[in-house]
Amino acid sequence: MVYKTGQSVVPGKLNVHLVPHTHNDVGWRKTVDQYYVGSNYTADEGCVENILDSLIPALLANKNRRFIYAFFQRWWRDQSKIVQNIVKQLVSSGQLEFINGGMCMHDEAATNYIDMIDQTTLGHRFIKDEFGVTPRIGWQIDPFGHSAVQAYLLGAEVGFDSLFFWRIDYQDVAKRKKEKSLEVVWQGSKSFGSSAQIFASVFPESYAPPTGFNFEINYGSPIVQDDINLFDYNVQERVNDFVSAAISQANITRTNHIMWTMGMDFMYQYATTWFRQMDKLIHYVNQDGRVNALYSTPSIYTDAKYAANESWPLKTDDFFPYANTLNTYWTGYFTSRPALKGYIRMLSGYYLAARQLEFFKGRSKTGPKTDTLADALAIAQHHDAVTGTEQQHVADDYAKRLSIGYKEAEELVATSLACMVESASKTGCRNPATKFQQAKDNTCPLMNISYCPPSEIDLSRGKNLVVVVYNSLGWKRDDVIRIPVINGNVTVKDPSGKEIESQLLPIANASLGIRSFSTMAYLGKSPSVAPKYWLAFSASVPPLGFSTYIVSGAKSSASASVRQTFYRSERSQNKTIEVGPGNLKLNYSGNEGKLTNYANVRNSIKAFLEQSYSFYSANDGTEPFISPTDGTEVFQPSGAYIFRPNGTHPIKSEGQVSFTVLRGSLLDEVHHRINSWIYQITRLYRDKEHAEVEFTVGSIPIDDMIGKEVVTRITTTMKSNKTFYTDSNGRDFIKRIRDYRSDWDLEVNQPIAGNYYPINLGIYTKDNRTELSVLVDRPVGGSSIADGQLELMLHRRLVTEDDKGVREGLDETVCVVDKCEGLTIQGKYYLRIDPLGEGAKWRRSYGQEIYSPLLLAFSEQDGDNWANSHLPSFLGMDPSYMLPDNIAMITLQELDEGKVLLRLAHLYEIGEDKDLSVMASVELKKVFPEKKIIKITEMSLSANQEKAEMEKKRLVWKVEGSAEKKSTVLRGEPVHPEKLVVELAPMEIRTFIINFSYKQVHH
Amino acid sequence: MVYKTGQSVVPGKLNVHLVPHTHNDVGWRKTVDQYYVGSNYTADEGCVENILDSLIPALLANKNRRFIYAFFQRWWRDQSKIVQNIVKQLVSSGQLEFINGGMCMHDEAATNYIDMIDQTTLGHRFIKDEFGVTPRIGWQIDPFGHSAVQAYLLGAEVGFDSLFFWRIDYQDVAKRKKEKSLEVVWQGSKSFGSSAQIFASVFPESYAPPTGFNFEINYGSPIVQDDINLFDYNVQERVNDFVSAAISQANITRTNHIMWTMGMDFMYQYATTWFRQMDKLIHYVNQDGRVNALYSTPSIYTDAKYAANESWPLKTDDFFPYANTLNTYWTGYFTSRPALKGYIRMLSGYYLAARQLEFFKGRSKTGPKTDTLADALAIAQHHDAVTGTEQQHVADDYAKRLSIGYKEAEELVATSLACMVESASKTGCRNPATKFQQAKDNTCPLMNISYCPPSEIDLSRGKNLVVVVYNSLGWKRDDVIRIPVINGNVTVKDPSGKEIESQLLPIANASLGIRSFSTMAYLGKSPSVAPKYWLAFSASVPPLGFSTYIVSGAKSSASASVRQTFYRSERSQNKTIEVGPGNLKLNYSGNEGKLTNYANVRNSIKAFLEQSYSFYSANDGTEPFISPTDGTEVFQPSGAYIFRPNGTHPIKSEGQVSFTVLRGSLLDEVHHRINSWIYQITRLYRDKEHAEVEFTVGSIPIDDMIGKEVVTRITTTMKSNKTFYTDSNGRDFIKRIRDYRSDWDLEVNQPIAGNYYPINLGIYTKDNRTELSVLVDRPVGGSSIADGQLELMLHRRLVTEDDKGVREGLDETVCVVDKCEGLTIQGKYYLRIDPLGEGAKWRRSYGQEIYSPLLLAFSEQDGDNWANSHLPSFLGMDPSYMLPDNIAMITLQELDEGKVLLRLAHLYEIGEDKDLSVMASVELKKVFPEKKIIKITEMSLSANQEKAEMEKKRLVWKVEGSAEKKSTVLRGEPVHPEKLVVELAPMEIRTFIINFSYKQVHH
Repeated sequence: MVYKTGQSVVPGKLNVHLVPHTHNDVGWRKTVDQYYVGSNYTADEGCVENILDSLIPALLANKNRRFIYAFFQRWWRDQSKIVQNIVKQLVSSGQLEFINGGMCMHDEAATNYIDMIDQTTLGHRFIKDEFGVTPRIGWQIDPFGHSAVQAYLLGAEVGFDSLFFWRIDYQDVAKRKKEKSLEVVWQGSKSFGSSAQIFASVFPESYAPPTGFNFEINYGSPIVQDDINLFDYNVQERVNDFVSAAISQANITRTNHIMWTMGMDFMYQYATTWFRQMDKLIHYVNQDGRVNALYSTPSIYTDAKYAANESWPLKTDDFFPYANTLNTYWTGYFTSRPALKGYIRMLSGYYLAARQLEFFKGRSKTGPKTDTLADALAIAQHHDAVTGTEQQHVADDYAKRLSIGYKEAEELVATSLACMVESASKTGCRNPATKFQQAKDNTCPLMNISYCPPSEIDLSRGKNLVVVVYNSLGWKRDDVIRIPVINGNVTVKDPSGKEIESQLLPIANASLGIRSFSTMAYLGKSPSVAPKYWLAFSASVPPLGFSTYIVSGAKSSASASVRQTFYRSERSQNKTIEVGPGNLKLNYSGNEGKLTNYANVRNSIKAFLEQSYSFYSANDGTEPFISPTDGTEVFQPSGAYIFRPNGTHPIKSEGQVSFTVLRGSLLDEVHHRINSWIYQITRLYRDKEHAEVEFTVGSIPIDDMIGKEVVTRITTTMKSNKTFYTDSNGRDFIKRIRDYRSDWDLEVNQPIAGNYYPINLGIYTKDNRTELSVLVDRPVGGSSIADGQLELMLHRRLVTEDDKGVREGLDETVCVVDKCEGLTIQGKYYLRIDPLGEGAKWRRSYGQEIYSPLLLAFSEQDGDNWANSHLPSFLGMDPSYMLPDNIAMITLQELDEGKVLLRLAHLYEIGEDKDLSVMASVELKKVFPEKKIIKITEMSLSANQEKAEMEKKRLVWKVEGSAEKKSTVLRGEPVHPEKLVVELAPMEIRTFIINFSYKQVHH
Repeated sequence: MVYKTGQSVVPGKLNVHLVPHTHNDVGWRKTVDQYYVGSNYTADEGCVENILDSLIPALLANKNRRFIYAFFQRWWRDQSKIVQNIVKQLVSSGQLEFINGGMCMHDEAATNYIDMIDQTTLGHRFIKDEFGVTPRIGWQIDPFGHSAVQAYLLGAEVGFDSLFFWRIDYQDVAKRKKEKSLEVVWQGSKSFGSSAQIFASVFPESYAPPTGFNFEINYGSPIVQDDINLFDYNVQERVNDFVSAAISQANITRTNHIMWTMGMDFMYQYATTWFRQMDKLIHYVNQDGRVNALYSTPSIYTDAKYAANESWPLKTDDFFPYANTLNTYWTGYFTSRPALKGYIRMLSGYYLAARQLEFFKGRSKTGPKTDTLADALAIAQHHDAVTGTEQQHVADDYAKRLSIGYKEAEELVATSLACMVESASKTGCRNPATKFQQAKDNTCPLMNISYCPPSEIDLSRGKNLVVVVYNSLGWKRDDVIRIPVINGNVTVKDPSGKEIESQLLPIANASLGIRSFSTMAYLGKSPSVAPKYWLAFSASVPPLGFSTYIVSGAKSSASASVRQTFYRSERSQNKTIEVGPGNLKLNYSGNEGKLTNYANVRNSIKAFLEQSYSFYSANDGTEPFISPTDGTEVFQPSGAYIFRPNGTHPIKSEGQVSFTVLRGSLLDEVHHRINSWIYQITRLYRDKEHAEVEFTVGSIPIDDMIGKEVVTRITTTMKSNKTFYTDSNGRDFIKRIRDYRSDWDLEVNQPIAGNYYPINLGIYTKDNRTELSVLVDRPVGGSSIADGQLELMLHRRLVTEDDKGVREGLDETVCVVDKCEGLTIQGKYYLRIDPLGEGAKWRRSYGQEIYSPLLLAFSEQDGDNWANSHLPSFLGMDPSYMLPDNIAMITLQELDEGKVLLRLAHLYEIGEDKDLSVMASVELKKVFPEKKIIKITEMSLSANQEKAEMEKKRLVWKVEGSAEKKSTVLRGEPVHPEKLVVELAPMEIRTFIINFSYKQVHH
């Protein structure tokens, strides 16, 4: 029979929008490829190929059927032109709608905004190129908490009209149901307010259909049996079920539009099973007439909501942390798999730099590209990737993809730098003579474990080591470079050939241990030589440019400017030790090596300061509690997602503290062996006013079968009044108050886990005099559990699984042959105390330096003739120019078609800094001194539509109780095509596509 | 990419025939409708609609893909003309092939050959009508043992070239693998020998694909990952798996053709999942080249086998019983659900008669038909229907369908008889005045529990009861009619108006108890009147005709010819009691009421004879054994399929035997209350030389949580030398030897269960003087466990499930409100001892009478004027004619298009009876005296092709070691179109389609 399914919205009736969808993780229990082809069934059942293959005929069978989709590109590539044309028709008719449209549904806690933009841009431009459409809808239905940056930046600023999501706190959702405030207008940014708001809709239960309406193959919801010739005819019964589910949802929803999310994880394996039933439901429910059922999409639903002309409750800030019930805080994943998180963050910065170098060299059609790394980084942002909530083999797969992408990008980087040092970049360069050490990882990704073969060469027989140092920031930059070397007597020359100051530091035994274990575990080999020293020297590099340093063997030990001081802890000596070659001084107690004081001699900051390690013993979930949401007994251990501590255990040194101070002209190092599995080096640089803490944590012992979550705590006497600040995806800082939520009256059940927040850039707290800031090198969880105190969770090793679906405990191990041990993490955080109101400068500018470290490339050179045949330095911008202090260039990328994608970001929020929270200008002519801009087009954030066009289409939502006045938000003016000056207001990110013609330039 | 899948057979290579199929039970864990639409998921997952919906696009996507199918008609009906045309193309191109082609894959143990023919005809004619094709292949891949009748009658005689099946004894299969004799030429009939042989192929493991090649959605075999751009590429690995599985099968198979059955129960839910992988396997395996893989069907495979021109081992008899491992004999299902089995058998005979009556009246386009009953009976033959191996709710569903079909057929029967008694049948009759008691079930299907409202009317006030007695056999028939009445004083008049002898028998209290419990349970009411007596009288009815008897209230008790004798057991009287009003005499011991002797005064047979009840205590499966087939531990209880007795327990009377003899002129009855749950009535008729035993068994007590399987044993002193005979589907008798198999050296592990065989018609044994025969009223299991002894399993009630998939124990209960008790079974068997060589006559002719009992229809009549307005009797054939004693008319049916389907069956095997195992002739002109045959076409058994055409196409297989001579088998000559005499050789069944023109006849 032919069912009547062409229903549209009916005014005056309750409209049930059936939104057919499937939720396809790009990796979780199995890898993204396994999900695509449907292999590794024992790990998980999903098969994306089934979904899409079966979807097309199902949509063709009835033009009223609709579907929304992601995870598309790979299938698309495999299809014939015929199928592609059919799909194009389905997209253009609106039967098939792309929502969200990124390469993945990224996580919102452990992701950096630059990565979020990059992966969304990648997806949006693919969809634009293939189908000519721009997604209108945000769809973040599974991430475990939701960020402000997602709402305003990856929502409003990419031109979305609405954002649909699931997973908010159970107490919050209960209140919102009561107040019908699951649908709100969300203003995620203090700086932008209503100019970057979005209609946001929280699903009441999940992204599954109401109970009894899941029609997945082999699933079991009662089908609509409407063949009167067969037994079990049940049309009226199913219509009644439908109406009653609709009414119960209508009772917690404003307007007479409700949405049913008709799908679930990897469902629509055989799409017809769903559509067959939905066809019938729409037909019979509308025949019944009590409610109106229709095939819909989030777009149609959004338009219907908008047409209702309602005012909606206002939501600001974000939806962190997420607890789905009592004691079940999803705050463990902020730190889970810190090595993977660190790798992703490192490559994110590398990707930014590599694209710049690709731009300088000119994008090659055939040679190595950054595209593979782009893809790998994009899917690594997935909410079961960077989150650490995937199975181990899947985490390995992400790492493998990243590594493959990195290798290709590294080749590109080496080639580009070679072209640039041969000054051939302008005319195009295919096969430069200079070879940077590709085979040996010319950029030394394993330098963190003091493994860098290109620098570990014998310089005693006339060989020189060429170190090209590239700066991807838009500012000139001075930094101390540290590289492992085997020779003690070396000299360093700067680009002008002048010998400069350098410093040797012995490599700690702890580092050498990791070096030898990890190279064996990951490279399968034990390096024949072991470096003895870190060679440190100060590099100065122009914006978007490089400087070349030559390291040579010294004639005598005297010629190397090396100063070293060893200090061993001595209990008897009860005096304080002051460390720090520059303005910043840290004091340690001589007997225990305990940090006691912080001082900056420049600005007279003096503060009591302690730093310590603790671990939380993980709840093993054997003692159940009763869930207030559904009355069931819950057994909730800590796991990859969940942080549920049982107790706090300060980590004391085992026996005598091993405490060593190394002093030098450039930096001092303080080494602490905290216990047998925690080692710490604190570095104070002569020319920097922060402390750099490098921690080595692991392997965390679990012989007692108790999971452990290791934190470091920074303790001051500041009266911070429960208040601290954490960043949203590395961008806006959000105020957090301990044991408090602004949206509802919090019932505190987990005083630790319930106060944890995701940290990407940093965390700070303040009192009426000072600010204490901590910046991180990767995403971690953190909090301020006591006034004046900040803590970061650095590493987690857990024994049990937390029953959130991943089916594996979070117990990362590293093996050499049969010997496995818990994963050791090495990372850094950075600490500084500023006078009140002055912390932002450091957090913002140094935060950018952490994200974009200097890129090093090595080459060997016999003799002294490098400078004869190579450019010693390179300036991408006009030599007189650099970007303003409050601006970062977060994208510079040559697109396939030769155009260039440029993205500039103002780094400060409104009111954050008295000098820098102001409108800034970038002179593009000076940014691109050798090129002529013939066209510049301002684009939406994801560069898939012109910004003006986006703004014209934007729906303007009304906020409950707020006046109708248009808020006056500062934004930069449109760019004048002649003047080519880009204005950026606080927090503004502007995206351009630029067409160049090359100028004739004479050197 | 485009895979190369158009491969055909390659000579000289090992050809792996991939045969895509799905096995769709028409009911098992859920009902046939539930399987079709996919509802009741908790019971089972299957959804046939998915399979077919997804199959069509999958076949269209690649013209090389093939599929074989059943379970089709229902889906077909729902399809649009467009889809139907597509399917027709797929069928005509050979991509979609129908195999077997019946309405279901019928069971082979508990089915009667007439039902098998009927259901196959129904399916074959549908396929012929819609698609113009005739299936070539038998496909019995799941039934639990395989019958001779299936092979020769439903195989060779329907024109199949081969028969594929699974499930033969584990010892047998092991030997056949060793000897490469899984493929044989099967000659199932002694009478027909090589003229009805078929190529038969037993699957080596099951009808599933080799391990690792099951590509069902959400199943888990490793897919072929051939996208080099994705990880986990595994083409060579999968090709190696394929080749190695092929070679291992080739090692047990003759010729270089092997078949892989690519499917399983309800698989192809999303057909593309299979074809996608098979496409790749065919492509890459052939690229590899070691073996040749191709899309195939059983037809293509059969032709390839035939082309190999091999000789094959000979197989005779059948494949019963089936054990899949030690102690796991599938012989319980021969008896499981005896009530359902009885209902099906009863309706089978009714359907035969109803079609005759439909023919006599003329098939109506609009009125009631037999089609619904035909459909219900067809699916009831399914190997999880009549077998009793379905879930209870599914058994209920079959019964409901049968009941609905019966109701419609009954309406037709009532209308037809009404037309016929009004002699309007020739001119067509729509609304006869006579009303047979439709509302009250005019044919009294509940007469077995003495419930027959039409006969239970008060005859004391001048009302008469009209009893029309229809005889569907081709012979004149004299039989005693028994009907329940409430009046003691009645007279019976025959069709000529003459008062005839009758006899009243008090209805036993045991019967009245069941009557009141069952009417309450099944009809929801307690009948207001209870009949007191059975009224018995002798009816004489012409072939295919009726006789009318009028029962009236008698003026005085004297006028009723009633004789009754009551005998109560008295222990003190130690004498023998002889019972039997005719030639047959049974002797009972006076003190115990124990049967001791059998005598026939006509032929001087005298024999010691005992009869007793026992039960087997069911093994509960708690003690495991080691399976010799796979070395696993097996826990095997008795269940719906499996008979695994733990011990034998004779049933002794509880306390004093209740033993009553009722004597009369027509019959004597001996009543035994064996115990509180077994009651038995033995009837000896004056004019019959067999004893009729009516047993009432139940509710079987299981308070001790021990399942019980109740048997009756007939014991003589015959020296039967381990040998007995059981029928094959009610047709050929097959010799059985205890603890012996002719095909292999039997290892005896289950001396009871392993000697059980299915019985549909009867079982007999013999020694050098006599034959002891027992005939049954429904399928049961039976054996001869000791020499001179026969036993029948009458009822089973089990506590545990036997782990063969049905997921329910076999514990049938009947409930009145909340009170449930185990199901009580009432049935009959018939017993006779004949001189050696004379038993067949009774077994064959009385067997036919049991199958086709006299059909009764009742009407009330005020006063005496019935005869004035109604025909008292009717003769369907020429009054001078009846069918020969060895011939039965097993089908007489008017087809939709007005033609008539006639099927005549010779009832005797070669050598079975010295007089009757001879060629017989039927004169059609006398069978249809009022009609003119203008055309007669001999058809294949399933009436889907002309017989001559079928014979022409038949493949002639060679048997190993046998000479090339054509065996001389007796068959009837073609029918001369003028003479119209049908010759039938022993066991021959001939099928005709006849076109009539009506003669002008004067009465």
